[in-house]
Amino acid sequence: MLSTITIKNRVSIGIVGFGAFGRLMARHLAPFFALRAYDPRLSAGGAGDISPVVSCTLREVAQCGIVIIATPAAAIESVVKALAPHLRPATLVLDVGSVKVAPAEIMRRHLPEHVDIVATHPLFGPESAKNGIRGLKIAVCPLRGRRGPEVGAFLKKCLGLDVLFAAAEDHDSEVAFVQGLTHVIGRLLGDFELSPMRFTTRSFELLLEATDLVRHDAPEVVDAILGANPYVQEVRQQFFRAASRLEAELTQRHRGGAFSRDRAAAEHDTPPSEPAR
Amino acid sequence: MLSTITIKNRVSIGIVGFGAFGRLMARHLAPFFALRAYDPRLSAGGAGDISPVVSCTLREVAQCGIVIIATPAAAIESVVKALAPHLRPATLVLDVGSVKVAPAEIMRRHLPEHVDIVATHPLFGPESAKNGIRGLKIAVCPLRGRRGPEVGAFLKKCLGLDVLFAAAEDHDSEVAFVQGLTHVIGRLLGDFELSPMRFTTRSFELLLEATDLVRHDAPEVVDAILGANPYVQEVRQQFFRAASRLEAELTQRHRGGAFSRDRAAAEHDTPPSEPAR
Repeated sequence: MLSTITIKNRVSIGIVGFGAFGRLMARHLAPFFALRAYDPRLSAGGAGDISPVVSCTLREVAQCGIVIIATPAAAIESVVKALAPHLRPATLVLDVGSVKVAPAEIMRRHLPEHVDIVATHPLFGPESAKNGIRGLKIAVCPLRGRRGPEVGAFLKKCLGLDVLFAAAEDHDSEVAFVQGLTHVIGRLLGDFELSPMRFTTRSFELLLEATDLVRHDAPEVVDAILGANPYVQEVRQQFFRAASRLEAELTQRHRGGAFSRDRAAAEHDTPPSEPAR
Repeated sequence: MLSTITIKNRVSIGIVGFGAFGRLMARHLAPFFALRAYDPRLSAGGAGDISPVVSCTLREVAQCGIVIIATPAAAIESVVKALAPHLRPATLVLDVGSVKVAPAEIMRRHLPEHVDIVATHPLFGPESAKNGIRGLKIAVCPLRGRRGPEVGAFLKKCLGLDVLFAAAEDHDSEVAFVQGLTHVIGRLLGDFELSPMRFTTRSFELLLEATDLVRHDAPEVVDAILGANPYVQEVRQQFFRAASRLEAELTQRHRGGAFSRDRAAAEHDTPPSEPAR
């Protein structure tokens, strides 16, 4: 297991891209690994104290036994190409993006044959992981080499995550619904001034809680979810078609104004004005 | 307080309309009151055992000290007109519908001057009250007479509800957002086959939980929420306008297909391919 190796030898993990998710990851990996990070914002000195993570060059990060790519999905190709010439044999390369099909194809194509590749998608972010990550889900897609089970065992036993192995295509086709719908609805509710309200229902409170969790996601994350997933366009189209149909139906049904009594009374099974017995 | 009167004298409550909400109400009121109900479905004998509630005629129900109208909002006018000639002086009449402006106007207009009127909206239903009603919200709009505080005290002290006094207009303008958005989104998600999913996020689980709570609401309840609220049309229009805008924005932004790397990479602050130091 990674953790055994780690505790004995302090295997180094190099993180490329030290944004909100890179930092969250570093907090949970720090007990097990020596951590290095490369991010242009770190070298510019604007990131504050990041200890125990050590800010490095991309080349230094590439020398670690494990390299985790935590950049926006859209930057993966350039990062992978830049890393490739510096990776040593038997390095384990992982990513943590919200989509898996396109990054998997890019990593397979541009990373040298002598490295192992495991794509992952932690199904949580800084907001949903506020109270810890135990029990939260992570998708794991082994792409090259035999280290998938080892990665899964570490995530499960050391971090307490619920590890779901999957092919990249199966992952993307399902999260197209899960994250696509969540983010579309989150964006739509963002259009309203919704708090504070007095007359809330439990259902409404859950809806606000759901959208609050994604409201602060970085724009690159939202781009990946709503654009870079090959299955999401169909989900978006289905949602907006349903919205058009519902708009037409409601306009038609309630065109009588605020309180169209006769029609509604005629449609529903309502008590008649005379007692039945 | 109602409860004191009740326990001593077994005040009778007459419920008009014994649907899902009438039954929920009866369960919670039974320890305090003698209960009668009028519903055409009851007299037709198709309702099964409803004890301790006694099935009565509309005229018998009208003779109770307290009468609660629990019919669909659209049927209120005919029910109120049918009840009016049979109500005794000092009867307390309440309703429990999801909208308040139109029913308030109808009750004020058609109920005799000698009865007291308090409109209410319990902000929960059979689904959200599954594990009890303590702590759940109820809006109370006193319309005629001085019995609003008494009703509020009973609901708070005997049923444990969170009592929110309000004018009918303030209630409707706020729940137009709360229930309007919840039901529109519930209807839209109803268009998708969403379970069982493996790769769910916390946000998605909350979204499903939110819509599950309203998924089984009676069509008359949904009609009241999405049609009979004088403020809901504006909320619906704002929602569908936001949907059109978002659809256009996402189509434009992601028209490059699944993984439009160059554009996204150029927009975001991504690590360059050369180490910065």
